[in-house]
Amino acid sequence: MDEPVLKSPVEPHGDHLIPASRNSRGLTLDPTHLIEVNHRRVDFQALQSLVGTSIVHADQLSRELVVELSKFAALLEVTEIASHHPLDGKLVVTAFFEASTRTRLSFESAVLRLDGKIVSVPDGKVTGIAKGESLSDIGEMFNTYGDLVVIRHPDESSVGELASGLTLPLINAGNGCDAHPTQALIDWYTLLKWRPELSLPEPTPGKKIRIGLIGTPGVMRSVNSFLALSTMFAQHIEKVTVITDQSDAVTPEGASFPIELTDELEPNLSDFDVIYMNSITYRDEAYERLGSRYKLNADSRLKESAVILHPFARSDELHPSLDRTTHNLYFAQAAGAVFLRQALLIAVLDRVSHLPPSLLLLTTV
Amino acid sequence: MDEPVLKSPVEPHGDHLIPASRNSRGLTLDPTHLIEVNHRRVDFQALQSLVGTSIVHADQLSRELVVELSKFAALLEVTEIASHHPLDGKLVVTAFFEASTRTRLSFESAVLRLDGKIVSVPDGKVTGIAKGESLSDIGEMFNTYGDLVVIRHPDESSVGELASGLTLPLINAGNGCDAHPTQALIDWYTLLKWRPELSLPEPTPGKKIRIGLIGTPGVMRSVNSFLALSTMFAQHIEKVTVITDQSDAVTPEGASFPIELTDELEPNLSDFDVIYMNSITYRDEAYERLGSRYKLNADSRLKESAVILHPFARSDELHPSLDRTTHNLYFAQAAGAVFLRQALLIAVLDRVSHLPPSLLLLTTV
Amino acid sequence: MDEPVLKSPVEPHGDHLIPASRNSRGLTLDPTHLIEVNHRRVDFQALQSLVGTSIVHADQLSRELVVELSKFAALLEVTEIASHHPLDGKLVVTAFFEASTRTRLSFESAVLRLDGKIVSVPDGKVTGIAKGESLSDIGEMFNTYGDLVVIRHPDESSVGELASGLTLPLINAGNGCDAHPTQALIDWYTLLKWRPELSLPEPTPGKKIRIGLIGTPGVMRSVNSFLALSTMFAQHIEKVTVITDQSDAVTPEGASFPIELTDELEPNLSDFDVIYMNSITYRDEAYERLGSRYKLNADSRLKESAVILHPFARSDELHPSLDRTTHNLYFAQAAGAVFLRQALLIAVLDRVSHLPPSLLLLTTV
Repeated sequence: MDEPVLKSPVEPHGDHLIPASRNSRGLTLDPTHLIEVNHRRVDFQALQSLVGTSIVHADQLSRELVVELSKFAALLEVTEIASHHPLDGKLVVTAFFEASTRTRLSFESAVLRLDGKIVSVPDGKVTGIAKGESLSDIGEMFNTYGDLVVIRHPDESSVGELASGLTLPLINAGNGCDAHPTQALIDWYTLLKWRPELSLPEPTPGKKIRIGLIGTPGVMRSVNSFLALSTMFAQHIEKVTVITDQSDAVTPEGASFPIELTDELEPNLSDFDVIYMNSITYRDEAYERLGSRYKLNADSRLKESAVILHPFARSDELHPSLDRTTHNLYFAQAAGAVFLRQALLIAVLDRVSHLPPSLLLLTTV
Repeated sequence: MDEPVLKSPVEPHGDHLIPASRNSRGLTLDPTHLIEVNHRRVDFQALQSLVGTSIVHADQLSRELVVELSKFAALLEVTEIASHHPLDGKLVVTAFFEASTRTRLSFESAVLRLDGKIVSVPDGKVTGIAKGESLSDIGEMFNTYGDLVVIRHPDESSVGELASGLTLPLINAGNGCDAHPTQALIDWYTLLKWRPELSLPEPTPGKKIRIGLIGTPGVMRSVNSFLALSTMFAQHIEKVTVITDQSDAVTPEGASFPIELTDELEPNLSDFDVIYMNSITYRDEAYERLGSRYKLNADSRLKESAVILHPFARSDELHPSLDRTTHNLYFAQAAGAVFLRQALLIAVLDRVSHLPPSLLLLTTV
Repeated sequence: MDEPVLKSPVEPHGDHLIPASRNSRGLTLDPTHLIEVNHRRVDFQALQSLVGTSIVHADQLSRELVVELSKFAALLEVTEIASHHPLDGKLVVTAFFEASTRTRLSFESAVLRLDGKIVSVPDGKVTGIAKGESLSDIGEMFNTYGDLVVIRHPDESSVGELASGLTLPLINAGNGCDAHPTQALIDWYTLLKWRPELSLPEPTPGKKIRIGLIGTPGVMRSVNSFLALSTMFAQHIEKVTVITDQSDAVTPEGASFPIELTDELEPNLSDFDVIYMNSITYRDEAYERLGSRYKLNADSRLKESAVILHPFARSDELHPSLDRTTHNLYFAQAAGAVFLRQALLIAVLDRVSHLPPSLLLLTTV
């Protein structure tokens, strides 16, 4: 079968459309631009490769998958699909052995708005999972409860251990310091909506971006996964500067763009087009703050067009005085999270075919 | 558009009707009387003012809204509407930063029976919300997850802080010592079902009620909100007596009925038509008992027709020996809670139009 | 009305059928054999006696009910029924005053896959139920929230106390050391799928089974309930050997098969056809391990055809080296749990009539 395309134009103000943005402050993004720049085509055939697949690490994805998932998410963001119940009959287990309200609710909202069901372990500490029960046994248990497992766990090894008993696909929602692939997908989905030309195979001359990454690769899963996806968009990236005060910070080997390591934020700040901040990691069963001396506020000397991403929660490293500025891309980033996760869930659970025909008027090219 | 009215008579024993009362002991109330006394009319037009509105304090309501919400709740209480799925596609966030099984489950049951969805923060202490994350940031997060937020929080300032980041309507389910407006709506819904003539603009001669309020205004949110709604029904109230052993108890200024403060229960007890009891408040992050020396049991010298309201949970101030007496209006009060909350949710979420036509045979007067 | 029977043959490979087993390791069972050996008949009339009934103890059931529930569960296990929404409009309260992820999620998955709704108390310790609130008051509260209550509680007396305020049916999901009837139903459902002839009124000559029960009756609710159901299948049982190191272990009086008590596992091990293991009990508000010196692994001298049941969670008494052997019936036991609970819920909530006609082509014999 040939590549399916979207036949009918996306009408941004039709009856079935919802507001393109839900964030109340900062930049708002119009997802239709990402669809337009790609000639209104979403390659649902490419997404077929995700059916039944576990999403463990960002580096198992490809540039193509990131782009197609983002275009699909953009479609979902501008279309009312709840009344079509695309996940009817599907049940997702959200197993948060490390509690995280933000990520758990984002996944649960994504599922429920598609009329899927949820059974939830909101906090491993208080749910009566007997001390010492193996994750492999828990995986075997989940096989009979649902169709997909979303797991967050403080240990890096947890995902592999759960998978050893699991026949269902799983989505890694953060395992220790290792990986957080859906966060990275959300980050890049946000960047692709912000600069739709980043979704194209070839860079636009003079439009390469400089990224400042305030965080510590190696101990921050969000940073790790963001860098892993960034290598897939190397042709659009001039340089990545990693700002950290940790002496043992390691940068990824084989990164396909220039990458430099520094412990100084100020000298570089005005160079960056995109600043990615993160100050919290989860290590040794507790949240820990790193790099707390790097702070941004409305008086920081940012490039006028610079945008800031932050996976949240934030502490005082990112001052609320920035919230009402156009540097604030972080609220738009949060607002897009549910739609990217919906795109991924629909793809993995093989329910593209349940979407409304108005969304999926597919034809052979 | 003119005021819509209910055209078809409410048939209390039709196929689509459910038992009028679900409480197993004490007085049971027939909600149809409240509808009858109002000539079978519900002014859905008046409820339009609630669409998209946050419900923060009891005093933002009016007598008319309390009466129309109560009549609407009475309709819901005698009609099977689950199969009409009036909240299909709507998602409510129940954010209980202060845990409360009773109130959380009441809201969740109200939503789910209308086929809405729930994402839940059952307990702020264990859900991984990072210490120090602002409620404003949490509000911004909720914007993308749902259509309405129900919040309970131990701090008075919490509702305003959450609202500063929120574009969704919220319902205050209790903020510190301040307010608990839906509890007060439930209290008055119960009184209007008990004495339907209280719903009329003019008092019935000789039928004014004496209220004894065992509790401490100023530190008890339920008591505060009950008093706030009571002022809207002043024409039906002869006097309110507040019984408290707290020296710093304050009574509301500008109350539109006679109000007296005392620390003695016994001398007044046999005068009261309605006794409202509450002994628990939540102060300084812990439950605290006040007025524990005021106790009622089946031997208390109550007026024969007197009824007792209590928002529950109770301790030993309200003895179970009263449960099987006709003084027990508190179980009927609990039984009506879900329906009042459903009426409010349907109004705020603008889903009156999704109700079954048999319920809503509206016509122009 | 006469006994309804299943008219159309169960086609194990039809379009509407799902894989007969979901466990990834150990024995897998084909539920159709249990239906075949009973001439494709399910006596739904017999299940009528469960409508609105509370399930408190295993001994309130009968052999006939266990067999019919198991046959019904087998039908559910091989049929796709989620799209028929048989519990639409029904709301189940899962009240786990003693936290248990395994049992709670099993019930919630059972309900949600039938399109029922759930409100949940996942852990009595953290849900804000005020210390000292009586279970009777909580029962009165639940009356207005749902249609059925699933309760787990660390105290034996809890079920009776809750029921004293409850007008809804309840299902006991474990009360202290007393009873866990749905676990016992799952255990026997597994045995009936494993040896379908155990479901017949008369024993097959030479096929009586020897059961080794590693556990302590009297303090282990799962063991108590398993023994209670076993007495209903006495004609198929040659002997039960109870292996325990507790001096105060008591065996049930009036058991209708030979029963012996020993503290030695090894001498008897190779005699058993079925080994039921449990090492954990919940006593005095904490999990406690008993009989930890009895251990099985792949080198244990088991009869070649012997199968092991275990209600899980396990500790080191049951070594993972057994997982890939044909002695492992415990993963199949876990995999069947959801379907047995669905059969019970549909029966108690009177929703047999909502099942797909293809499943229920009933006729008069």
